[in-house]
Amino acid sequence: MLSPEIDTPAILIERGVMQANLRQMQEFAGRHGVKLRPHVKTHKVPELARMQVALGARGIAVAKLSEAEVMAEAGLGDIQIANQIVGPKKIERLFALAQRARVTCAVDSAGGAEAIASYFAERGQSLPVFIEVDCGLRRAGLSDPAAVLQLARLVTRLEGLRLAGLLTHAGHAYGAKGGDEVERIGAHEGRFLVDLAGALRAQGIEVAEVSVGSTPTARFSGRVEGVTEIRPGNYIFNDLNQVALGIVGLERCALSVLASVISVPAPGRAVIDAGSKSLALDQGAHGSEALKGFGHILDKEGQLTRLSEEHGVVEFIGENFQVGERIRIIPNHACPVMNLLDRAYLVDGPQVAKVLEITARGKSQ
Amino acid sequence: MLSPEIDTPAILIERGVMQANLRQMQEFAGRHGVKLRPHVKTHKVPELARMQVALGARGIAVAKLSEAEVMAEAGLGDIQIANQIVGPKKIERLFALAQRARVTCAVDSAGGAEAIASYFAERGQSLPVFIEVDCGLRRAGLSDPAAVLQLARLVTRLEGLRLAGLLTHAGHAYGAKGGDEVERIGAHEGRFLVDLAGALRAQGIEVAEVSVGSTPTARFSGRVEGVTEIRPGNYIFNDLNQVALGIVGLERCALSVLASVISVPAPGRAVIDAGSKSLALDQGAHGSEALKGFGHILDKEGQLTRLSEEHGVVEFIGENFQVGERIRIIPNHACPVMNLLDRAYLVDGPQVAKVLEITARGKSQ
Repeated sequence: MLSPEIDTPAILIERGVMQANLRQMQEFAGRHGVKLRPHVKTHKVPELARMQVALGARGIAVAKLSEAEVMAEAGLGDIQIANQIVGPKKIERLFALAQRARVTCAVDSAGGAEAIASYFAERGQSLPVFIEVDCGLRRAGLSDPAAVLQLARLVTRLEGLRLAGLLTHAGHAYGAKGGDEVERIGAHEGRFLVDLAGALRAQGIEVAEVSVGSTPTARFSGRVEGVTEIRPGNYIFNDLNQVALGIVGLERCALSVLASVISVPAPGRAVIDAGSKSLALDQGAHGSEALKGFGHILDKEGQLTRLSEEHGVVEFIGENFQVGERIRIIPNHACPVMNLLDRAYLVDGPQVAKVLEITARGKSQ
Repeated sequence: MLSPEIDTPAILIERGVMQANLRQMQEFAGRHGVKLRPHVKTHKVPELARMQVALGARGIAVAKLSEAEVMAEAGLGDIQIANQIVGPKKIERLFALAQRARVTCAVDSAGGAEAIASYFAERGQSLPVFIEVDCGLRRAGLSDPAAVLQLARLVTRLEGLRLAGLLTHAGHAYGAKGGDEVERIGAHEGRFLVDLAGALRAQGIEVAEVSVGSTPTARFSGRVEGVTEIRPGNYIFNDLNQVALGIVGLERCALSVLASVISVPAPGRAVIDAGSKSLALDQGAHGSEALKGFGHILDKEGQLTRLSEEHGVVEFIGENFQVGERIRIIPNHACPVMNLLDRAYLVDGPQVAKVLEITARGKSQ
């Protein structure tokens, strides 16, 4: 019986696997002379962020201001908000946060930059910002080099802002058909940003940081000469998305969801107490079609074919499932799983090493 | 500007629309002589559950034991857990809960029933349980009448259990192609369960309650002679799923997500600060293919075509979107949205009437 003292559904994190994942990425960064700035939106746990910093990470990246606030409160001192900060209330909070931690954020519009600049300048301060560049994801960020140059000139001119560098996120690598395409996207991510930085420097604009992201592409973009920083997030746990892309094997997935079989109502069908409220509905990220089910069941044959909020339907043809039996599931996408429950269990096999409170869960503002 | 004192992303609930939704379902129940037992997994807010009871609901339904615990703590006294309760820890909690509220749960296996029965019997008590029946969703529940009869005989025989009735949930109605199919599924849901209750009674087994569920089917199953109770949940808010099924119009959707435009990086593309962490990834529930996007933008032309965790991508061809602009989005599925954030704003148009703490959020155990 798996961890009998833990009730289900629950998040389990295998400590040894996680530590090996952390060490390996840190070693990669050291080997290639880039700074590692883990994106902590994956785990949302200050204690794990501190562990990453203790291993050599230069600071952390977050997706939202409220995540940054939780991390700063917990003593993390170097925080990049890899996102736009928009609106008067958020700029006020950003300023307050900048009084107690080294904070940066992204900008990709003149209006967005000017609003932050004027608030900081009026108070006699300036904020270092990254210009967000789109290297193919087609989400936020500028893709036209002329637009990047224009915004960089504005940022260097505005009182209240300083240009920290350029950042991009090749999230479209999650839609790749396999390792070769991931490598191509990662190499492009790095080169595109390094070239842009070179173009800005040729115009006399100082660009200190060239920051790239994503777990699948980090190992490719991180070795491009001129990249200064990588921001992978998922690598701490890994998940089926990484396995499907060929980035790691299943044995490198540290996070699983422990669930109980609550019903075996018909031949070949079992129902578990983990649904979309604990496994999340993510299939392939950013358009990947690779994952048709909702997770991989460990140590037993069965397909998790349907989720509703509190039920998962397992179809099986082999060994029967029993009411009360417990199973572990590697999720498709680990990051949203950590957003669904309030705590996770750090385990050494069947032993609970520690209960982790996911204090940056639900921090979307 | 929409509710400028609320930061984004945020959940807004239009109070007047919600109240009209509540009244209408209560009136339907009264007109057809069935008890209304709202499924509160939709809102997860004790205060809204009390409002439903004050309007005439006979009690509430929940999906999980931990939701029941939150609701009992808040004073709700009649709680049906419309799910199996499995495992020694949960049965212990179920017993403790039964000491402070009128509680029932579902059973669909001999082993599940016996485990609960022996715990309660050893303590000189008995728990009223519903046998869960599958009327077509193919999730939990028994579909074979002979198996239902066999389990009903076991339940009536076991010290520690009493048979409260039969329950089913026609969630497959969410996969219907339109109103006619919903009506057919709903009518079948009611008749199937009433017929089963009749078959049990013919064998001398008392079946007090015949309980059916789901917002789309309630209006059809609830009028079947012999049904005693309906358990709709979503009707308090409604959402695009209900609109797509023809159950209500958009004007009856009480819940929306307020979001800010944070980037307009390319012609025809805007990015908002609400992603899957506030809108949820649900498209059609239970297999519906009707909803291809991730929500309906109110009062402005644009398609929400992609979500990542903290970003939503809007594609538009008409009027431009501006950085800092706020938009409201009716989600595909309101229930998981209430599971993602910690609070929601009850509003009267632009005025905030009340902040609701979503205290049963994340209660999956």
